[in-house]
Amino acid sequence: MSETSLCPTPRTRIRRHPERGSYETAEIHAILDEAYLCTVAFHDGETAHAIPTACWREGSHLYIHGSNGSRLLRALADGAPSCVSVTHLDGLVFARSAFHHSMNYRSVALYGRFEAVQGEAKRRAISAFMAHLTPERADQIRAADEQELAATTVLRIAIDEAVAKRRSGPPVERAGDEALPVWSGVVPLKLTRGEPVPAPPQEVENA
Amino acid sequence: MSETSLCPTPRTRIRRHPERGSYETAEIHAILDEAYLCTVAFHDGETAHAIPTACWREGSHLYIHGSNGSRLLRALADGAPSCVSVTHLDGLVFARSAFHHSMNYRSVALYGRFEAVQGEAKRRAISAFMAHLTPERADQIRAADEQELAATTVLRIAIDEAVAKRRSGPPVERAGDEALPVWSGVVPLKLTRGEPVPAPPQEVENA
Repeated sequence: MSETSLCPTPRTRIRRHPERGSYETAEIHAILDEAYLCTVAFHDGETAHAIPTACWREGSHLYIHGSNGSRLLRALADGAPSCVSVTHLDGLVFARSAFHHSMNYRSVALYGRFEAVQGEAKRRAISAFMAHLTPERADQIRAADEQELAATTVLRIAIDEAVAKRRSGPPVERAGDEALPVWSGVVPLKLTRGEPVPAPPQEVENA
Repeated sequence: MSETSLCPTPRTRIRRHPERGSYETAEIHAILDEAYLCTVAFHDGETAHAIPTACWREGSHLYIHGSNGSRLLRALADGAPSCVSVTHLDGLVFARSAFHHSMNYRSVALYGRFEAVQGEAKRRAISAFMAHLTPERADQIRAADEQELAATTVLRIAIDEAVAKRRSGPPVERAGDEALPVWSGVVPLKLTRGEPVPAPPQEVENA
């Protein structure tokens, strides 16, 4: 394992389409950094769960947060083995046959256990989240006070057992199909920002 | 349970922010129908996995498919208890305090076990997938031949233990924060289609 590449493990080794896999930390980090949401899977002893939640990366850890009352966070804080999935859908790949249709995407699968982030590190982590989410406003918003911090759980998972997987480019047709009279190519997809909608003045929570 | 609403179960009952939950099948179906991808969680006896894969709905089932060699599909075809997650991120909710930031989203959590779809039903399911993915081309593309069908696994899961969860609208501030001199509101997010990119003529797979 180099400093810039992770070791494949039995859980992260890509068996099908190995050319679509990458263990390069730069690529894994870039995919995570573009994400606002991840989906966390864990098993509670009875059943598997898949729960979407906000995420952000700092250094070689991925962070999540939420209310102390969250079932997800309580289960993960207890050290449940977890798998975090992040996926960006980049395009629909339209071939001339049904079988050769595909999707362009970039995804990360990350295995490990979360740990709680406490004290000053928790405060710094939340600041980093705001800098990730809204860099131009991060210095202007009111920071969390002691009560808000105490009500919030922050967890992190080391990015050391992870793999990126991605497909890009045009469809690959079966030889002979290229003459079929149907359009083929890629329809790109992108999560785009719309026009900001200012909040009305009256939205405050009940005291 | 009415014909248009599912019963909450211990796995799908929303405890925090119950006002954000819905068991209405129309709402659950609408969220699933807008999705190209779901994330499937299951436990293989040793570890939890979260794997993104294409999905489509027909009636009261959600379908996935892939190569017979896929580890995901083989584990699920064996009847592993699963949780399917679909999430649409609709906006970033910027409050005047760090604590009151949020996200607008629509998500579904669906629990159950997948079952294999065989024979003529498999052929019909793949046609339905093409109609979902590319309705205007579905009648023009070459349908899967026997060999392609035989190489493909199609699975489905009943949508009978599921819940939708969503947030929409502006931030909710702490009373007193509304005077802080920082922008607040929602930045909408939407997965949008870009300009189609026609395939170059030479992309055919090796025979």
